[in-house]
Amino acid sequence: MGGSGISGDIIKIILSDEVKVPIWVNKGYSIPSFVDRGTLCFAVSYSGDTEETLSCFDQAVRLGCPIISIASGGMLESAAQKHGMPLIKIPGGIQPRSALGYLTLPILIALQKSDIIANKMEDIEETIKLLKDKAKKLSLSRPCEQNGAKGLSLKLFGRIPVVYGSDGPTAVAALRWKCQFNENAKIPAFWHVFPELNHNETVGWELLENITENFYLILLRDEGEPERIKRRIEITRSLIEDHFGDVVEVWAEGKSKLTRTFSIIYFGDFVSAYLAVLNGVDPTPVHRITLLKKKLAESS
Amino acid sequence: MGGSGISGDIIKIILSDEVKVPIWVNKGYSIPSFVDRGTLCFAVSYSGDTEETLSCFDQAVRLGCPIISIASGGMLESAAQKHGMPLIKIPGGIQPRSALGYLTLPILIALQKSDIIANKMEDIEETIKLLKDKAKKLSLSRPCEQNGAKGLSLKLFGRIPVVYGSDGPTAVAALRWKCQFNENAKIPAFWHVFPELNHNETVGWELLENITENFYLILLRDEGEPERIKRRIEITRSLIEDHFGDVVEVWAEGKSKLTRTFSIIYFGDFVSAYLAVLNGVDPTPVHRITLLKKKLAESS
Repeated sequence: MGGSGISGDIIKIILSDEVKVPIWVNKGYSIPSFVDRGTLCFAVSYSGDTEETLSCFDQAVRLGCPIISIASGGMLESAAQKHGMPLIKIPGGIQPRSALGYLTLPILIALQKSDIIANKMEDIEETIKLLKDKAKKLSLSRPCEQNGAKGLSLKLFGRIPVVYGSDGPTAVAALRWKCQFNENAKIPAFWHVFPELNHNETVGWELLENITENFYLILLRDEGEPERIKRRIEITRSLIEDHFGDVVEVWAEGKSKLTRTFSIIYFGDFVSAYLAVLNGVDPTPVHRITLLKKKLAESS
Repeated sequence: MGGSGISGDIIKIILSDEVKVPIWVNKGYSIPSFVDRGTLCFAVSYSGDTEETLSCFDQAVRLGCPIISIASGGMLESAAQKHGMPLIKIPGGIQPRSALGYLTLPILIALQKSDIIANKMEDIEETIKLLKDKAKKLSLSRPCEQNGAKGLSLKLFGRIPVVYGSDGPTAVAALRWKCQFNENAKIPAFWHVFPELNHNETVGWELLENITENFYLILLRDEGEPERIKRRIEITRSLIEDHFGDVVEVWAEGKSKLTRTFSIIYFGDFVSAYLAVLNGVDPTPVHRITLLKKKLAESS
């Protein structure tokens, strides 16, 4: 779920050409009916206390599935220990959405060590190197003119972002940007994906311009996009851009799919954090989620 | 894709407890890497000319997959004939999104005739009976006070709908409502699903109230919701409702999953059509999609 669940979405996209079985990202209380003892399950919950994940863990245990858990502790740690299942324990004390590397890379490495996928160390090293460079370029000390994330956050101030990606790295990045705007900047944000959005949402930007002039369209781009998708993005932009306050394109960087995915996610993370500052809110706490969990706990 | 693709989303939800293999709804140009000659494929395109579907059809043919096509004609019909694959030909001349029954039920019946699923005739009859009754209740001749769809469309006039469903019939209905608002009423609309939305979007309704007061929250409800989901919906509503212009709940009707899914979809179809009338637009044509396809054809 949420900031933990998106690790599954990333893995699904990174391995989409490589793995010859369906990778199913399960967000909810129940596991699908096709799961059986031949299904390899990853239970991913940063806190280890996400009730949906714990519920799915229990169901998978009853079916006799092999389960690899990833958590910083919590009830998932205890459940894994109780059932003698492996747990990859990651450092605690941060927000789940800040732990994206910790939540994603262990899945890749576990699959690599089991010879299910090829060695990913080169891609992981490329990613870490690129993000370290990027962290400097986007750091708080850099002024707006030299800091793309600060610059974009200024443009987004007071507006609702709509983030479009396309099949591949930018699709999961669009989802992540949306969630980071929600959780860090505490604002509404929406996302969709090419080519599917050409079959519905494209028609929606016709009326209510008085409201959508307060929206900002962010197109996440990747040089690896197929030609047909590039063309769709260009045409769609020309058809709808007048209905937005403004439009910007943000491009993925790097060679491997992993790096391209994380590069564009990382940029959005900075944008959302700077936007929180502009909004005068602390990006870290998510009071509503805490309150909701408290109220849910009272009624269980 | 679009109005044709949603038939796959419906089938996935209807059969989620019954079928012991993953049902994968594929929206894009490429089929997943796990597809092989043991994968049963349905190629669904109302026009038969959807380029993404044709691309996937070709890939599946090359892999030797059995493919059942559903189309009113077009290149998919020719392709199916050329490769000696079965085609379920459905009536032409309407919009894909008006053909939802034609696009969905043949998949159920094909699976039933192949003994992959139990007989669904009772559910189909329940659905048809309920929709016929509903068509009378929601008809144009009925005044607003006696016509829930007209009443809701009046409330939505000038506003952006946000539609929330939850795992099950209301999830796919929320997607459908969003798309129908886009395509029929030509307005932006957004959707999300419990419990996942509690992990991100719930925090987004904190700031920018000056914009979101023009939004309208529609909660799609189903008596089959698990208790935990019911509780989540109630708590979430109490946390976020002040940030919307208004909130309404719409409940599914009927016994079977199929009927509950179609009942709530059907109500939304009427709401979006009445909203088009209020907006002074013809709900039928989708000029932007037509224009986009023309421009894409020019560049291929």
